[in-house]
Amino acid sequence: MPTIDPWRPDRAPQPPLSGTAMSTSATAATRQPLSATLELAIELMRRVSVTPDDAGCQALMIERLERLGFSIQRLAFGDVDNFWAVRGHHGPVLAFAGHTDVVPSGPEAQWHTPPFEPYINEAGELCGRGAADMKGSLAAMLTAVERFVAAHPEHPGRLAFLITSDEEGPAIDGTRAVVEHLREAHERLDYCIVGEPSSSERLGDTVKNGRRGSLGGVLHVKGVQGHVAYPHLAHNPIHATAPALDALCREHWDDGNAFFPATSFQISNLRAGTGASNVIPGELEVVFNFRYSTEVTHQQLRERAEAILDAHGLDYRLDWTLNGEPFLTARGELIEAVLAGVNDATGETPALSTAGGTSDGRFIAQLGSQVVELGPLNATIHKVNERVRAADLDTLSQAYEAIIKRLFT
Amino acid sequence: MPTIDPWRPDRAPQPPLSGTAMSTSATAATRQPLSATLELAIELMRRVSVTPDDAGCQALMIERLERLGFSIQRLAFGDVDNFWAVRGHHGPVLAFAGHTDVVPSGPEAQWHTPPFEPYINEAGELCGRGAADMKGSLAAMLTAVERFVAAHPEHPGRLAFLITSDEEGPAIDGTRAVVEHLREAHERLDYCIVGEPSSSERLGDTVKNGRRGSLGGVLHVKGVQGHVAYPHLAHNPIHATAPALDALCREHWDDGNAFFPATSFQISNLRAGTGASNVIPGELEVVFNFRYSTEVTHQQLRERAEAILDAHGLDYRLDWTLNGEPFLTARGELIEAVLAGVNDATGETPALSTAGGTSDGRFIAQLGSQVVELGPLNATIHKVNERVRAADLDTLSQAYEAIIKRLFT
Ligand SMILES: [Zn+2]
Ligand SMILES: [Zn+2]
Repeated sequence: MPTIDPWRPDRAPQPPLSGTAMSTSATAATRQPLSATLELAIELMRRVSVTPDDAGCQALMIERLERLGFSIQRLAFGDVDNFWAVRGHHGPVLAFAGHTDVVPSGPEAQWHTPPFEPYINEAGELCGRGAADMKGSLAAMLTAVERFVAAHPEHPGRLAFLITSDEEGPAIDGTRAVVEHLREAHERLDYCIVGEPSSSERLGDTVKNGRRGSLGGVLHVKGVQGHVAYPHLAHNPIHATAPALDALCREHWDDGNAFFPATSFQISNLRAGTGASNVIPGELEVVFNFRYSTEVTHQQLRERAEAILDAHGLDYRLDWTLNGEPFLTARGELIEAVLAGVNDATGETPALSTAGGTSDGRFIAQLGSQVVELGPLNATIHKVNERVRAADLDTLSQAYEAIIKRLFT
Repeated sequence: MPTIDPWRPDRAPQPPLSGTAMSTSATAATRQPLSATLELAIELMRRVSVTPDDAGCQALMIERLERLGFSIQRLAFGDVDNFWAVRGHHGPVLAFAGHTDVVPSGPEAQWHTPPFEPYINEAGELCGRGAADMKGSLAAMLTAVERFVAAHPEHPGRLAFLITSDEEGPAIDGTRAVVEHLREAHERLDYCIVGEPSSSERLGDTVKNGRRGSLGGVLHVKGVQGHVAYPHLAHNPIHATAPALDALCREHWDDGNAFFPATSFQISNLRAGTGASNVIPGELEVVFNFRYSTEVTHQQLRERAEAILDAHGLDYRLDWTLNGEPFLTARGELIEAVLAGVNDATGETPALSTAGGTSDGRFIAQLGSQVVELGPLNATIHKVNERVRAADLDTLSQAYEAIIKRLFT
């Protein structure tokens, strides 16, 4: 990871930014008024919005969007708060999507300063839970829209926000439910920029234009328990399954394509045996996971895996879980605008990538929308001492604004 | 199992045999004076001699052997009582070997009567812990010797007893230590009959003339832990090991021989994974066991298994445990005498077998002695409601006596 840890023990921690003295509590290194983006990011980060608790973040965003002329639909499902906001009446819809919830702080003692007391250190990094994932992005997209609307109050097209507080949790009553609602309401969604931290080493070096699918399987192979001294009275499920596991590991599932690496099969857990060294076990459990490209479907993977097991004559039960279907946004208006807009703001030529876990983009893509993920560096997300270069959030906001301009002016 | 369960719920349990009224408490079905063998078996079974506690069983045997003119060597090692007894001064030595310790009772509630209150039921079965393994055998060998000595006080050869109270436990301070002592004392041992319950369906149908070796292995294969979404950053030890496990399971280790089935390899335990379905594990543990014939050595098995692992380029650690080397007594004076003696007493022509787990016979064979195991039916050993046909113990005693006669008259 290229990020230098600024929390050197020889450097006394700065006092946390207070609500009333934000602009004066910036550090010596960056002693200047905080930008609107940083002010908003800090305001959001001071709200303890651990999934699914929004903790007032959305109210803050809604207040500012209403001031800009957005019409708001609050869409609470279960204990999850979401909202959908639109400005404009005609033409294509460009939505910014994101989540106000954050993962728990983890061991607080390992944080150099309290996780929900955001703070800019001498290295110019905004520190605290949600700095990178993704309250910094939320602030950047909101200020980008504020500047754009101020300059183009009669812009063509429509601007929208799709905000949830359930991305880090079960992801059922969040984006998925909102997308279902939008589908039923026949809402149009042409372009969507998700604020997930997509950058790897420099802001804007990577944009995600898709994600692999994730398909999980739990395999139970039945044998007959017995004593190792009497193997003819037992049927060892490990021995029966070994060649099938080898075949599954060797199988070439696909070649991937220009945007996806080849589909990957990984066994994560294997368990058999009573603990006694002289007992042949009666059952074997295998937990595995496919990360798959758009070259295969989950139905095909299931059929092919089962065909391999069947070919080895196993007595098995196999339970499948589809964690997420893959999605891909090919080059087109959105990708071109994003590549150009990021270059306008950063000078970077972003790489397109589909690596990493699943994201809420998979739900939004089901509406037929072009979807990309663009956000800050992801080196510290979900870790203690989460942080992001403060200046990157201002640059990110300029990139978002440049993308809007390229699509809507 | 052919044994009929006599504990039918419609049949009230008999009162346990009392010390003073043994002969009158035999059941209606068998109402006759108890034989000396059954009386002694019951006396031994009333002593709670759970490994390594002898609970006075050996004192009882020693008292009767001394009366017969045996000279006794008490050989306590650690907390284990053992003894070696010899009668006679010249010629070949025939030893009866056995153990006074028993396995714990297991759940007492599942016993129809208390496990250490021996009792003959209406089906004529002697019930209680140790009836079959192996206090019944101890009584039968002692009364056989008593009758033989009474009839042949000046018998040729030497009669011996090798008795331990550590067969069901770690088996370190028992027969193994006694054998070591006998070796150092240059004691001669030509023939040995171990009283282990060798019979399968009818008394005397099977005699064990050897046992397979047992070699255990614990294999740890090292990989690199990671996230299933980033398999190129990890190294999955399950995937790396699958072909090696398959090869080990398929390997033809030997063909066995006239007395041994082919060597068997069995994996008893397999463990990998953190429990999380999205984490590639960093290590795989495999526990396996060889039961091997006299056609291979444990050194050969180790070398061949390691060659298979090496051929698959695994980063592994493999810890071996030699539980017992195989032994075999080929046809010769002892086998001929045993086959004929059993036939004299039972009409059976015993099959020679080397099946089953390890026994103390493996230690005795190291003295160069011919060794066989001959005892009652093993259907209920180590289980609740252990029992043996009472009449079988009298017949077993006659078989032991017939074998002595065939060797020593
Ligand atoms: Zn996120
Ligand atoms: Zn035994």
